[in-house]
Amino acid sequence: MAAPPAGLLSINTATTRGRWGLAEAIEGCARHGIRGISPWRDLLHAMGVANAARAIRARGLTVTGLCRGGMFSARNARARKANIADNLRAIDEAHALEAQCLVLVVGGLAEGSKDIAGARAQVRDGIAAILPHAKAAGIPLAIEPLHPMYAADRACVNTLAQALDLCDALDRGRTGALGVAVDAYHVWWDPQLEAQIRRAGKRRLLAYHICDWLVPTTDLLLDRGMMGDGVIDLKRIRGWMMRAGYRGFHEVEIFSAKNWWQRDPDEVLAICKARYRRVT
Amino acid sequence: MAAPPAGLLSINTATTRGRWGLAEAIEGCARHGIRGISPWRDLLHAMGVANAARAIRARGLTVTGLCRGGMFSARNARARKANIADNLRAIDEAHALEAQCLVLVVGGLAEGSKDIAGARAQVRDGIAAILPHAKAAGIPLAIEPLHPMYAADRACVNTLAQALDLCDALDRGRTGALGVAVDAYHVWWDPQLEAQIRRAGKRRLLAYHICDWLVPTTDLLLDRGMMGDGVIDLKRIRGWMMRAGYRGFHEVEIFSAKNWWQRDPDEVLAICKARYRRVT
Repeated sequence: MAAPPAGLLSINTATTRGRWGLAEAIEGCARHGIRGISPWRDLLHAMGVANAARAIRARGLTVTGLCRGGMFSARNARARKANIADNLRAIDEAHALEAQCLVLVVGGLAEGSKDIAGARAQVRDGIAAILPHAKAAGIPLAIEPLHPMYAADRACVNTLAQALDLCDALDRGRTGALGVAVDAYHVWWDPQLEAQIRRAGKRRLLAYHICDWLVPTTDLLLDRGMMGDGVIDLKRIRGWMMRAGYRGFHEVEIFSAKNWWQRDPDEVLAICKARYRRVT
Repeated sequence: MAAPPAGLLSINTATTRGRWGLAEAIEGCARHGIRGISPWRDLLHAMGVANAARAIRARGLTVTGLCRGGMFSARNARARKANIADNLRAIDEAHALEAQCLVLVVGGLAEGSKDIAGARAQVRDGIAAILPHAKAAGIPLAIEPLHPMYAADRACVNTLAQALDLCDALDRGRTGALGVAVDAYHVWWDPQLEAQIRRAGKRRLLAYHICDWLVPTTDLLLDRGMMGDGVIDLKRIRGWMMRAGYRGFHEVEIFSAKNWWQRDPDEVLAICKARYRRVT
């Protein structure tokens, strides 16, 4: 399979976390000829939204997604309302950055709760509550199914099928306002993956994230691998994405406390570029 | 919901690993009035199959499953053949123990492989290869879907739906020779869980394993929780099992290097009994 287009590589700022603020990440991407960036909101707030938007525009970068909205499930109505308000702000920030989507990590069980069906209902209601504002702002919402090992504490949407069921329920007309972020790390194991990517189709495929699953994995959160260092068949998954009509960026998002976060980010970006061309 | 029948508690020897051999586990269960036991094969071999069968019979215990067969995926035909031979021995051992089933942990990716579809095909072929011997021995094979976080290195069957698709493919007639082991730890997150338990029905539901999912979970393999210490709604899942016709044992299987394996097994069994009655 041919290498993916160099111009479609994007770097999620989680990949250089602890080393680079957003301003440095913007300069770093530009320096390495990387055309896409996906900022996390803590870094965005630290830099200032207007400043960030200006720098990103000056460098001609595409914001392939803003990380993140979501976290809808909560113990009480007041907390849920505060979450909604924060999501509306995230949509405005994504708009200021001309982001291609707002990524939704939907939240896990509410504190002290064992009611995952209830959490899932809260997520559905939360997305429904912010969807009109997202539509008005022209910011597509990308539901990111997270690996089932995060079902309790990060996201109770755990398969692409489940995310697409939500899309069908809340956006029957496939308007483009609601879709999914497919992160290979979260979904590579799913026996339904190919079929569900096909089901999503071009209109629902809003983002594609890559990294690798290491064997062994020593930490549930912070031990993701560089593409090529693990067991995910990234070329195969890219093929499915392409056949379904996806033409967007390929965003590298690596949480790696003991390895990649310890390295010089310029080295990390150079390796991302090389691996992107060679193994994805 | 009423407490489950005291007589249906079973202890998997993984719960007292490192502390008790099989002989001690048999005596321990008897001492605590626990009527079911599920041995791992390494402990069984250490005690000797005939000795174990005699002791288990003398104590009137039910072997709710033998752990484990499976591990079908491998790099080459020779290794796969050796795996099959080992599974045939496991079936004979299960027969000697009058076990209710042989639990199959099917294996992950072959070493160096990224081909999960290929591994899944090897698993299907492996089960097909041993099914006749299992039928002849009267030992039902229980495919255990493992949590997706084990897809690479332990089992590439990761949902109940996928396990039941295998059952349908290899045992169309629902003869009782092939079914599933439902372990709450592995499947609690699955949005399809209730529907798939219903689909399995009495004929396919061969075993039910319980423990709990801790938040946070600090190790992918060895940080399972005691029932009630985590977020799994065990009463709800038991209700689904019962409604689907399951009337078998409830087997406690806890891998816990830093907590439960450090304690006196008599204390662990007493707590298992209490929690079983109260929270499952």
